Amino acid sequence: MTKIKVIKNILSANKNTADKNRRFFREKGILAVNLMGSPGSGKTSLLEKTFEAGAGDLRFAVIEGDLATSHDAKRIKRFGVPVVQINTHGGCHLDANMVGRALKELPLAHTDILVIENVGNLVCPADFDLGESKRIVVLSVTEGEDKIEKYPFMFKFAGCCILNKIDLLPYCNVSDERIKRTALKINKDLDFFKVSCKTGEGINRWLEWLRAKL
Amino acid sequence: MTKIKVIKNILSANKNTADKNRRFFREKGILAVNLMGSPGSGKTSLLEKTFEAGAGDLRFAVIEGDLATSHDAKRIKRFGVPVVQINTHGGCHLDANMVGRALKELPLAHTDILVIENVGNLVCPADFDLGESKRIVVLSVTEGEDKIEKYPFMFKFAGCCILNKIDLLPYCNVSDERIKRTALKINKDLDFFKVSCKTGEGINRWLEWLRAKL
Repeated sequence: MTKIKVIKNILSANKNTADKNRRFFREKGILAVNLMGSPGSGKTSLLEKTFEAGAGDLRFAVIEGDLATSHDAKRIKRFGVPVVQINTHGGCHLDANMVGRALKELPLAHTDILVIENVGNLVCPADFDLGESKRIVVLSVTEGEDKIEKYPFMFKFAGCCILNKIDLLPYCNVSDERIKRTALKINKDLDFFKVSCKTGEGINRWLEWLRAKL
Repeated sequence: MTKIKVIKNILSANKNTADKNRRFFREKGILAVNLMGSPGSGKTSLLEKTFEAGAGDLRFAVIEGDLATSHDAKRIKRFGVPVVQINTHGGCHLDANMVGRALKELPLAHTDILVIENVGNLVCPADFDLGESKRIVVLSVTEGEDKIEKYPFMFKFAGCCILNKIDLLPYCNVSDERIKRTALKINKDLDFFKVSCKTGEGINRWLEWLRAKL
């Protein structure tokens, strides 16, 4: 019971800070998105392809969340996109406080879209509001067909699901259409995109979606 | 500070129950292994291939941990292996208490190896001792080369790492040897196996390892 109470307190304190972040984003006219998914689903690759396709008219900034290393921040920097790396040192998700602190290090007066790439984890990040206006879940076809049913909480409150690695469909025993049907059964308002961050297929449609949210 | 203290209390209570489980396994002469990895890394597929190859002389029992559904337990049952499904309803890991309760539902007088398949998550399960004698991490080549460095805690205390989906190596820009080198740099005592749960390649070597631990 103490455990439950403490978790409730943590979540309620997080919600307050998330609301503060959200007000800040609104005042600055920034679209903040929370990018989530399993380790290796392709979150950073999606950003790389997005910057390749969308650079020019859209000004991005990125917060990278990882247990350890600055690998992802380095990948983002190559595109000239401002980025802050957060290392959670074992922590399984970002929280609104971490994001709030990272905001101070970004040139947000010149940002249209802030992408917060969460720790690779299909469970815990779903519980922590960061102040984002949209949640995006990346799922790769190699993870199998049953992940949405087995990890429903992540998909229930997402605005958009990106099914990545569709170039590997011929080698995996999964149906992209069945995955899409399951996703829409769990969340009928979910926008669903099939992409390959290897070939670039589908990236433009996802970018249009992002643009429409501005 | 309160948060840290509570987490310490939770982990210390968990450790006590884990020690109780461990004593129980020792008394019964059961090898208990904690099978961990990202969602879709192939933990249940590994078990299926293991039962196909090792059925007969080894008597298995399985505890399946998932947020939702009994999909995995159903897959295990097809092999005539006793199984209990735990649903965590959003919880990101199994704990020693959940395992202790599940033990009561298994015919452990007739079990050589108990496999506890944890929730698909490369972060949180690493913190929770279940009373197992070995930790096994399944990683798939499609997750990319950098996962061990980015999620080191899971690999640091594992006895064995199974690199799965090597049949997909020709289609992924990753080197299995580089992954192995990184794994051994983080944990020099780690036993490392390359397998394909699709073709069955490498399953026998992993099964020998498991047999040797009995």
